[in-house]
Amino acid sequence: MHFAEPLRLQSGAQLADYTLMYETYGTLNADKSNAVLVCHALNASHHVAGVYADDPKKVGWWDNMVGPGKPLDTDRFFVIGVNNLGSCFGSTGPMHLNPATGKPYGAAFPVVTVEDWVAAQARLADVLGIACFAAVMGGSLGGMQALAWAIMYPSRLRHCVVIASTPKLTAQNIAFNDVARQAILSDPDYHGGDFYEHGVVPKNGLRVARMVGHITYLSDDDMAEKFGRKLRNAAADNAYKFDFGIDFEIESYLRYQGDKFSEYFDANTYLLITKALDYFDPARACDGDLTLALAGTEAEFFVASFSTDWRFSPERSREIVAALACNRRNVTYAEIDAPHGHDAFLLEDARYMNMVRAWYQRIWDRLKQPTREHA
Amino acid sequence: MHFAEPLRLQSGAQLADYTLMYETYGTLNADKSNAVLVCHALNASHHVAGVYADDPKKVGWWDNMVGPGKPLDTDRFFVIGVNNLGSCFGSTGPMHLNPATGKPYGAAFPVVTVEDWVAAQARLADVLGIACFAAVMGGSLGGMQALAWAIMYPSRLRHCVVIASTPKLTAQNIAFNDVARQAILSDPDYHGGDFYEHGVVPKNGLRVARMVGHITYLSDDDMAEKFGRKLRNAAADNAYKFDFGIDFEIESYLRYQGDKFSEYFDANTYLLITKALDYFDPARACDGDLTLALAGTEAEFFVASFSTDWRFSPERSREIVAALACNRRNVTYAEIDAPHGHDAFLLEDARYMNMVRAWYQRIWDRLKQPTREHA
Repeated sequence: MHFAEPLRLQSGAQLADYTLMYETYGTLNADKSNAVLVCHALNASHHVAGVYADDPKKVGWWDNMVGPGKPLDTDRFFVIGVNNLGSCFGSTGPMHLNPATGKPYGAAFPVVTVEDWVAAQARLADVLGIACFAAVMGGSLGGMQALAWAIMYPSRLRHCVVIASTPKLTAQNIAFNDVARQAILSDPDYHGGDFYEHGVVPKNGLRVARMVGHITYLSDDDMAEKFGRKLRNAAADNAYKFDFGIDFEIESYLRYQGDKFSEYFDANTYLLITKALDYFDPARACDGDLTLALAGTEAEFFVASFSTDWRFSPERSREIVAALACNRRNVTYAEIDAPHGHDAFLLEDARYMNMVRAWYQRIWDRLKQPTREHA
Repeated sequence: MHFAEPLRLQSGAQLADYTLMYETYGTLNADKSNAVLVCHALNASHHVAGVYADDPKKVGWWDNMVGPGKPLDTDRFFVIGVNNLGSCFGSTGPMHLNPATGKPYGAAFPVVTVEDWVAAQARLADVLGIACFAAVMGGSLGGMQALAWAIMYPSRLRHCVVIASTPKLTAQNIAFNDVARQAILSDPDYHGGDFYEHGVVPKNGLRVARMVGHITYLSDDDMAEKFGRKLRNAAADNAYKFDFGIDFEIESYLRYQGDKFSEYFDANTYLLITKALDYFDPARACDGDLTLALAGTEAEFFVASFSTDWRFSPERSREIVAALACNRRNVTYAEIDAPHGHDAFLLEDARYMNMVRAWYQRIWDRLKQPTREHA
């Protein structure tokens, strides 16, 4: 979807025009009340569920959650996945032509925030004729977008689903993001952000950035269980190599993740997304008072966290729940005992999936009987 | 001290000859029974305590612990600090000339292990005529050396002090080390380890390596308290910058630490030390049985850990204590409730310092009355 009118950003900059890549699943009902917006996290996209006919290997990133008969059932709901501005999967981003210069934006692409993404998503909803979503849902950075929706457009969502997220990053979160940024910015192939015209990609920087990020997605225990101190060549002589190559399985795994990522992800997008994460802090405008920041929300909330998530720990979700409760908002909170750290929000877990399924069943039951707000 | 006879290393390689830089404090008594060896961690050196007459700003790294009247009292004990092989503070390392080629070792410097360091330290003790140390002591990687001393030379130390250490790295520990290594190895200025002859230093890689390391030295809570989400320009307009420069205090702090480190530390040394950390695992030779690995030890142990240390958590120290207890070794264990994460072992903390002081008092009381072992 192309938008010809300019979008003014939180920074004060504006995008003259832009395109949002989106995907839909299921059917929008007659009164357009069954739409659910699913917001993506760091390296995901609009491709939330299913596969493409011509690329059956490319499964949507939340395919276990979204689809026919799944917790978010596309036989019932009309689900929308939108690739965010600044991303590298089709929506306008740093690799696209800057109309002002005729060259790729590169470093000139403006820093975008969670609120900017939400504003752009709202325009898409306008064009699709969706006045009010049945739910806006997301995990991690996606959960921040859901939260921002509830704050910015309180009457445009009846339910808000915030999973493995946080109302703001901690100093440690920001620190890890800055390590990732420094790895990219100091890669000579970054060329100040204008590497496209040099025909190179700052692969080394992206690789290190992804490696450090990946460590924070997994739990210490999960890593210990999956990899421990297993040597990669364990089948052979079980000896250390005494060089700087790969000794341990965990090294092999991380380097593989880093290599793979550096081949498809855009370095400028990575920088932009870490900044959007760092900047998100809705309580900031209210002197740090999250309760005040959430006072205008109208949605009913489902908040979930995972016990071993040390990136966005359960404590962060409890802050959201406490602030909603202080506002007498209706909120359901699930703290799920799961071993997989932050990544748990993407993984199969019967208790987690059943909670979400039950929540959408409730939404569905209500949809069939128009409520006061909805009538 | 120069050693002309070759040192065979755990890897099978050997150093033809080598020099160890060391420093001593206090006076060795007549029967040479009051010597304490202090082993250093990652970026420290032989300069444990005090200042140099010509450089009064360069205070020893454990000056709060070691000195006249301090917990390890140099009015009583003869304290030795040794710079480890492969380091960049005077002992033979990658920046020194390789006698085989006449050029700096660079990448040709052999990978050294904790056990290699201890073997080299033992030779120094031989030359100094110290048959048995009153104590061998270290924190973090230094604690690993103390532990290795107790295993390799059980009769050469009467006490072993292991602080904020671990019997082996976890997968997560190794993962962080490998991120640091990859940052250095992929810096074009690393030149495969032979950057000396190119007249450059892989500063960007070292900087990122130090930044990621530094995050693991501090606790999440401590970072939150010290930095939180404070903006660096808070005095001014309290606004985000909307670029990839510095917004937050924590970014400024980490980049400063990274910059400082990259100016004085050697990249090859950093690689070597992270490998020594990764490889340390005395239980490995005993099929993972730490109790068996410690069965031959004779020293009395003091083990300490810090509650918020998530690099080498208290659980790791408890594993050491449990294995010693199974061997009916005499062991004192202090788990200190301290907010400063792994770095706590270097910092002032009255309870911690008093515990160490009391422990050395006990050693001192015993020294005055020759024991059976010592007679």
